[in-house]
Amino acid sequence: MHKIAILGAGYMGGAMTFPLAENNLSVNLWGTWLDNEIIDSCQKGIHPKLKKALPDSVNLYYSRDLKKAIEDVDIIFIGVSSDGFLPVFSKVIEVIDKNYFFFTLTKGFVNDNGKIQRISKIASKLFYNKFAKEEFNWSSIGGPVKALEISKNIPTVSIYGTKNKEMENMTELFSTESYRIVTTDDVIGVELCSAFKNVYSMAMGMLDGIYKPSQEGMYHNFSSLIFNQGIIEISKIVGSAGGNRETVTNFAGIGDLYTTSQSGRNRLFGELLGKGVSPNAAYRKMLSSGELAEGYFTLKHSMEWLASLNSGILYDLPLFKIIYDIILNNKKPLEELKGLSQIYKK
Amino acid sequence: MHKIAILGAGYMGGAMTFPLAENNLSVNLWGTWLDNEIIDSCQKGIHPKLKKALPDSVNLYYSRDLKKAIEDVDIIFIGVSSDGFLPVFSKVIEVIDKNYFFFTLTKGFVNDNGKIQRISKIASKLFYNKFAKEEFNWSSIGGPVKALEISKNIPTVSIYGTKNKEMENMTELFSTESYRIVTTDDVIGVELCSAFKNVYSMAMGMLDGIYKPSQEGMYHNFSSLIFNQGIIEISKIVGSAGGNRETVTNFAGIGDLYTTSQSGRNRLFGELLGKGVSPNAAYRKMLSSGELAEGYFTLKHSMEWLASLNSGILYDLPLFKIIYDIILNNKKPLEELKGLSQIYKK
Repeated sequence: MHKIAILGAGYMGGAMTFPLAENNLSVNLWGTWLDNEIIDSCQKGIHPKLKKALPDSVNLYYSRDLKKAIEDVDIIFIGVSSDGFLPVFSKVIEVIDKNYFFFTLTKGFVNDNGKIQRISKIASKLFYNKFAKEEFNWSSIGGPVKALEISKNIPTVSIYGTKNKEMENMTELFSTESYRIVTTDDVIGVELCSAFKNVYSMAMGMLDGIYKPSQEGMYHNFSSLIFNQGIIEISKIVGSAGGNRETVTNFAGIGDLYTTSQSGRNRLFGELLGKGVSPNAAYRKMLSSGELAEGYFTLKHSMEWLASLNSGILYDLPLFKIIYDIILNNKKPLEELKGLSQIYKK
Repeated sequence: MHKIAILGAGYMGGAMTFPLAENNLSVNLWGTWLDNEIIDSCQKGIHPKLKKALPDSVNLYYSRDLKKAIEDVDIIFIGVSSDGFLPVFSKVIEVIDKNYFFFTLTKGFVNDNGKIQRISKIASKLFYNKFAKEEFNWSSIGGPVKALEISKNIPTVSIYGTKNKEMENMTELFSTESYRIVTTDDVIGVELCSAFKNVYSMAMGMLDGIYKPSQEGMYHNFSSLIFNQGIIEISKIVGSAGGNRETVTNFAGIGDLYTTSQSGRNRLFGELLGKGVSPNAAYRKMLSSGELAEGYFTLKHSMEWLASLNSGILYDLPLFKIIYDIILNNKKPLEELKGLSQIYKK
């Protein structure tokens, strides 16, 4: 019988306890050093982000108890933010003395001593540094999954990318009536779709900020243009990085950008910008209420990563460049986004 | 200098006058026998669907004056409903004695004496019956374009499918600062995306009807699943019919399903069903306020067309089949749509 530890007790870590507990799997939920209050609150009965109690069977662990949280499990889900990935995964590798199956929900890029890397790449490096002769058992998880909705049994499909047949089969143990799983061996594709949808959804949010107050529902041509261009660019990125463009169509890209464009923290961050709030002020405003817009970091980090991938790729990513200019060079959202349409023939 | 007639004075016919007039093209707007009140109202100053005046330069024609409306033009835009296509296009072929460039905005299928056909196919048949030695100059128009938004200069991209180089170049005369055009030679792909997005957007509307009243914003995992599955199925249909799957990604499919899922008549029709209104009652309710859900006809007609294309294709289109069962076999929306997720592995 498999036993599971989930690292990171925020939205996604908390939400994943629901399908896993429904399948009668033993689940340890470990909070990072930033999650102490969440664990406190869960102890008292309510997950403060999900605003409901976690399943009774879930065992809670504070950050100081990482070793205890993982010592008797064989599967580790990682649900920390991209910022937290490197410190948490390094600590995991430090304390473990056997192999695990790693499933990661973290989305984005990691800064490894100044070099921007995909998460699966840095994780594999850290793993092999210690376990040179072991197999690195890894899956990147993506797809249109809002954590709150998992905890409410809204029908959901997630995509698990793994090259490991045993892990692919394992996914059947995680899925439930409402939480369904599709699998692919395209880890890179899943990983990049998950990361970049956070970037493109910020542009969708900007349109909401610009138009919603005055033109409720009257800017769908524009939002569809941005949405579709986002998918085109995510496909190009996935293809350039050696992933499979089919993955973009298989829930990791289209479905996930859809859900992220309808609601969530990255859309909200974009909306604030569309309303005229400066990127720095918007970022601080969200952080002060404990919300992190991952897309902001992905945007910052991925510019460098994209250039290292293919120095000419930015010419094929006009929307990415516009989002970058708006958020990191303080350009005006409406003017820049309107400019996008000029790439199509007149 | 090109001169243009637009046939059909509803939403889309009316809206297209804006970019064309902005480009100083001479535009005749002809109303069908169902559009007499629209032309009346336009004469008095206001297009009743778009709720605003058309450009001053537009010449208005009643249905009795078809010959006059088209005799001195060389380009004909067709903006009638799919139901109206066959009678209108037959009449056009009957009264003309020279060749034209045809651009069609009509989306869906046509019932030609019991045989269901794509619009471009039946149009070409009618054309060659009379002009056996002429070239049939045809373009099918698609993409994420809500008519009201064109008339308000919301940034828009449309895709024109044509195999005719002269017509491809002509599109530069139609586009404006806000109305942009991309082109493809994949007429079939554009045509099928335009038709089928109306079918799949009805399912998106159903979810709104089911969940919105009680769970505002809390069903995005589900709507993303349906949205993505819709795109997967549209790609399969386009591929099976000899179109290019790339067209689905190039605004004709993804962008257009996005806009149609956010608002519009097909989404509304679905929403009524999701709220428990029967398909017949919903259809009559909308018709009584002068609104036609094209997706309803496309669904009805395309089942037969799909079977004639490839007898096994329905196995690859589970969502299409579910929508069909809900709308034409009175199955319950929530149960059926939830059933869709069961196709993904548990």
